[in-house]
Amino acid sequence: MSHPVPGSTPRTRIRRLPDHAVEDRAALHAVLDAGLVGHLAITGEDGQPFVLPVAYARDGERVLIHGSTGSRLLRGLAAGAPTCLTVTLLDGLVLARSAFESSMHYRSAMVLGSCAVLPDAEKVAALDLLTDRLLPGRRDDLRPHSAKELAATLVLALSLDEASVKISSGPPDDDEADLDAPIWAGTVPITEHFGTPMPAPDLRFDLPAPDYLRTWTR
Amino acid sequence: MSHPVPGSTPRTRIRRLPDHAVEDRAALHAVLDAGLVGHLAITGEDGQPFVLPVAYARDGERVLIHGSTGSRLLRGLAAGAPTCLTVTLLDGLVLARSAFESSMHYRSAMVLGSCAVLPDAEKVAALDLLTDRLLPGRRDDLRPHSAKELAATLVLALSLDEASVKISSGPPDDDEADLDAPIWAGTVPITEHFGTPMPAPDLRFDLPAPDYLRTWTR
Repeated sequence: MSHPVPGSTPRTRIRRLPDHAVEDRAALHAVLDAGLVGHLAITGEDGQPFVLPVAYARDGERVLIHGSTGSRLLRGLAAGAPTCLTVTLLDGLVLARSAFESSMHYRSAMVLGSCAVLPDAEKVAALDLLTDRLLPGRRDDLRPHSAKELAATLVLALSLDEASVKISSGPPDDDEADLDAPIWAGTVPITEHFGTPMPAPDLRFDLPAPDYLRTWTR
Repeated sequence: MSHPVPGSTPRTRIRRLPDHAVEDRAALHAVLDAGLVGHLAITGEDGQPFVLPVAYARDGERVLIHGSTGSRLLRGLAAGAPTCLTVTLLDGLVLARSAFESSMHYRSAMVLGSCAVLPDAEKVAALDLLTDRLLPGRRDDLRPHSAKELAATLVLALSLDEASVKISSGPPDDDEADLDAPIWAGTVPITEHFGTPMPAPDLRFDLPAPDYLRTWTR
């Protein structure tokens, strides 16, 4: 079932498989917080969309994105181009008794809007939040950002005002007529894992991998 | 280094971090074949892009996408709207000595163009190829597609004529001045795994999970 919810608009209302639409902000936040990379779009000439992967971090009711001041994508977004950020987590394969009902388990969030450029005074806090979200525990190890690095970095904020979430889970939903076929049906979960940290070859100190890496789980 | 390659155009030429651009069709095919879900865009009114996750399968020098004839995305693409399909595989986190040089390992393919609608005569073969790619071994277990299912399904083909690949791998690339800092640096791999198959609760036969599931690895 699909209902208007905070943050839903006619543009984000889920029309296909509306029973997969999820109706609360907590679910939106959870999907965004579970992802590391989203897909961000900008439309070029002649309505040609371009979709690029970006690291991002949720900051309350907005998402922060950063990148080079030299990036065409970021410069276009900084100029106010409408965008869409979609974050998808693939959770499994659904093996129904027919190809038609076979599908995937996923959690996907879509955010529409235009980005605001963060003023210089807010840049350091935003970059630190990105580090805290993407590499938790790492920030205390790092030196401060240099003025040159800050000048070379654009930080954009995309409000979650207009957003939707779609979650597909559960067993296959086969036609009643197919249930008598002697075919195995079910789901195959997909999970993501962090592997063993690999030290940089130019490490000049005999340092163990930091403890906070052990807290990183997926 | 970035060079013009077959399939590269001014629109797909990689401008940011061009040393990450990969110059051969085999790499493009490999990235597309390693993914299960891509992000497909369409531009709506006022230049607003929409990005949706889609299952896809490479078929030679094109990518096949299928979905409901009721899908606005697919109907728009069937009408010839320009699109972009981006497939990204996240391979790890790069922990440099500075936040600025910290990044991610990834493989990402971007395909630009417009989709062709597959004629009815080619639909069954295309859907079978999608099943073979996404659920290898499964097809022989499944009953034939019904006429109703075929009528409800649109299959689109997106040519790989205009495409690019970007791959980020290797150790952190820190500033020389940062190498003396007593900070651990390195990479943390990210891998995706299939878990234990879960039988559907409405399974009417005491069937084991099929052998071909054991060949599914990531």
